[in-house]
Amino acid sequence: MITTFSFRSTRVLMALTVGILGLSACAWRPTAPQGTGDLGVVIERASGKVAVINTTHQAILGEVAGLGDLSHASVVFSRDERYAYVFGRDGGLSKVNLLTRQLEARIMQAGNSIGGAMSQDGRYVAAQNYTPGGVKVFDANTLALVADIPAEYAPGKRSRVVGLVDAPTAGQGQRFVFSLFDADAIWVADVPGAGRPPVVHKIEHIGHEPYDGLITPDGHYYIAGLFGEDGLALVDLWAPQLQARKILSGYGRGQEPLPVYKMPHLRGWSVAGRYAYLPAIGHHEVLVVDTETWQEAARIPVRGQPVFVIARPDGKQVWVNFAVPDYSRVQVIDTTTREVVRTLEPGEAVLHMEFTPRADQVWISSRDANRVTVIDPASFDTLQTLTVPAPSGIFLTHRASKTGF
Amino acid sequence: MITTFSFRSTRVLMALTVGILGLSACAWRPTAPQGTGDLGVVIERASGKVAVINTTHQAILGEVAGLGDLSHASVVFSRDERYAYVFGRDGGLSKVNLLTRQLEARIMQAGNSIGGAMSQDGRYVAAQNYTPGGVKVFDANTLALVADIPAEYAPGKRSRVVGLVDAPTAGQGQRFVFSLFDADAIWVADVPGAGRPPVVHKIEHIGHEPYDGLITPDGHYYIAGLFGEDGLALVDLWAPQLQARKILSGYGRGQEPLPVYKMPHLRGWSVAGRYAYLPAIGHHEVLVVDTETWQEAARIPVRGQPVFVIARPDGKQVWVNFAVPDYSRVQVIDTTTREVVRTLEPGEAVLHMEFTPRADQVWISSRDANRVTVIDPASFDTLQTLTVPAPSGIFLTHRASKTGF
Repeated sequence: MITTFSFRSTRVLMALTVGILGLSACAWRPTAPQGTGDLGVVIERASGKVAVINTTHQAILGEVAGLGDLSHASVVFSRDERYAYVFGRDGGLSKVNLLTRQLEARIMQAGNSIGGAMSQDGRYVAAQNYTPGGVKVFDANTLALVADIPAEYAPGKRSRVVGLVDAPTAGQGQRFVFSLFDADAIWVADVPGAGRPPVVHKIEHIGHEPYDGLITPDGHYYIAGLFGEDGLALVDLWAPQLQARKILSGYGRGQEPLPVYKMPHLRGWSVAGRYAYLPAIGHHEVLVVDTETWQEAARIPVRGQPVFVIARPDGKQVWVNFAVPDYSRVQVIDTTTREVVRTLEPGEAVLHMEFTPRADQVWISSRDANRVTVIDPASFDTLQTLTVPAPSGIFLTHRASKTGF
Repeated sequence: MITTFSFRSTRVLMALTVGILGLSACAWRPTAPQGTGDLGVVIERASGKVAVINTTHQAILGEVAGLGDLSHASVVFSRDERYAYVFGRDGGLSKVNLLTRQLEARIMQAGNSIGGAMSQDGRYVAAQNYTPGGVKVFDANTLALVADIPAEYAPGKRSRVVGLVDAPTAGQGQRFVFSLFDADAIWVADVPGAGRPPVVHKIEHIGHEPYDGLITPDGHYYIAGLFGEDGLALVDLWAPQLQARKILSGYGRGQEPLPVYKMPHLRGWSVAGRYAYLPAIGHHEVLVVDTETWQEAARIPVRGQPVFVIARPDGKQVWVNFAVPDYSRVQVIDTTTREVVRTLEPGEAVLHMEFTPRADQVWISSRDANRVTVIDPASFDTLQTLTVPAPSGIFLTHRASKTGF
């Protein structure tokens, strides 16, 4: 009782204090302690804002504005799951406090950027840039520059960088892996920090025009998709010698290539148990690859050109969205039968899907419907629909605990 | 500048307010917003306390007392990673607020209990009990009883319950799986909640005396260790018909069984890629099992009777601690060569090991040295040593995002 009383009176007093002192605009305001394991953000691509979401209450907690051009944005989280780092297309890097829902820091770190990564230890946040081509590594607390890695592959020539991921350290510093679109190369950079220069391992002739990359959930393999040829490049990050080998060469061979309406995101690739599921570029198929042999194991016909192919965390299902004109559909594949078991139409222009870590929910953004839908992947019931202006990417804080996210 | 100024002055004012109002003893006190993704607890087994830890700063934030008999304790976390639920040997269930570091609720829910689980959706916390034998399910917010599942296998006969885990829902409610030591059975309970009774699927004749169980990280298989015979029981939770089959029968056959100084914890089993690593009961070996065939793939000799066999999150290493008399050692197995690559002696009586989710740290408790050691698993360097009285289990909040933890 006494506890309850003092609890209430305290709140009132705090509220008054806050009112009197007018703290609401300050960088710090008293809030009842709140966990951050069930938080996340939704990109509002047209307005330069993110919506901060809570998956327990399936609610929007508020918005944070002033993040610049979010037409192609991605997000990583601090290791304590308190901050979201938003990478904008315009080269802006913004640090958003999820608890106070305020923009705590923002830098323009390049002219054109397409994403970033968080180091294994959470100390560094790295950005991959088109112009000028390269990778910049920043202190996650202060956003001070820690390392600059120009992607200079020939005198005066800098490549656009794609497929940047964090990787487990090999003991020489925090490791990042990325691909050079214009140099047919994959670079592995170890960043020791504290004023010491990065050590860059350069893997060349990996195949023509790597356009995106991913790291397997265990951090064992890095895979770059190749736009300039029919296949993928694979690097075994556990091998004593870092080198690339070609896999799935000619996976589109013998078929009439279709026009590619949207480049699939390799980040959307998913590994479910022993098998990886990935979009067949230009084809209405999801490819199934055996991660032990890296041979094609199956092809699953779907209703359009896949964009994101995302495994439910337990790997029993794979969810797929599509490029125009099929981009209002979502199809669900059962990995035990490798058949489509459900087709959903949650709203016009599905851009992204994100599962809660234990898969009790999947959040889906429908840009043209200005809607985010929360679905139970076990029953396919719609649990909640939320109005969000032109939503695109959805990112939950548990990504902080996963390699490559 | 202005932000910085108001930030500081605010802090001072808040501090004063706190001082004047004497809020420090209240259930709610103003704290600068803090993330919860890098928090955890260490059990102080002798004193009925837990130490709240932070892995970013590798520090102890404080202690929470009054948790009863923690001689055999385990912990699960709320889905927002704000609360730790501590299960004591005495049947006590305590709800600890990690941010305020206060005991918010505590109930005596049984006479003798050995652990619990958190439902997939985070709404229910379940306890497995010896006396009276059964499972009780509670509301995670209020600790109000939601379901009582007596393990009555014959009129008037109740079994001790072991190996309780949460499992992904099959659509009929939140799912828990557990073993009945005295009834040679595995039960799968679906808890719909809201006053509706649980639906219990009973799998019988699974083998003699199941003593602990685990669920694979993907929630696909439940495995019970058998004390009364030489083998294990496996249930495929994705199969339309729930049934058990025997695996690894006779894995100790042909060898002179050694006295078992401590039952290994199956919870310590680890799945690294395609292979599971588990302690060979009574033998100085770690067994390697192919999870596709469930056949033994290899045996790795180690320096004692394994207790916990824990994979580094990326699966490249497996760390092992031992029963007396070898219980001050830790051995590290490289899963690519299946050889012991390092033997560590972090302090007398190593009881538990816990990795940060991205494996930049492993925390090890040494009971008789009153020490917790933080080690870098890549370099084996000791990053930090902390004094904790008689530490046993170490539990980090990212468990909230994992099935079976």
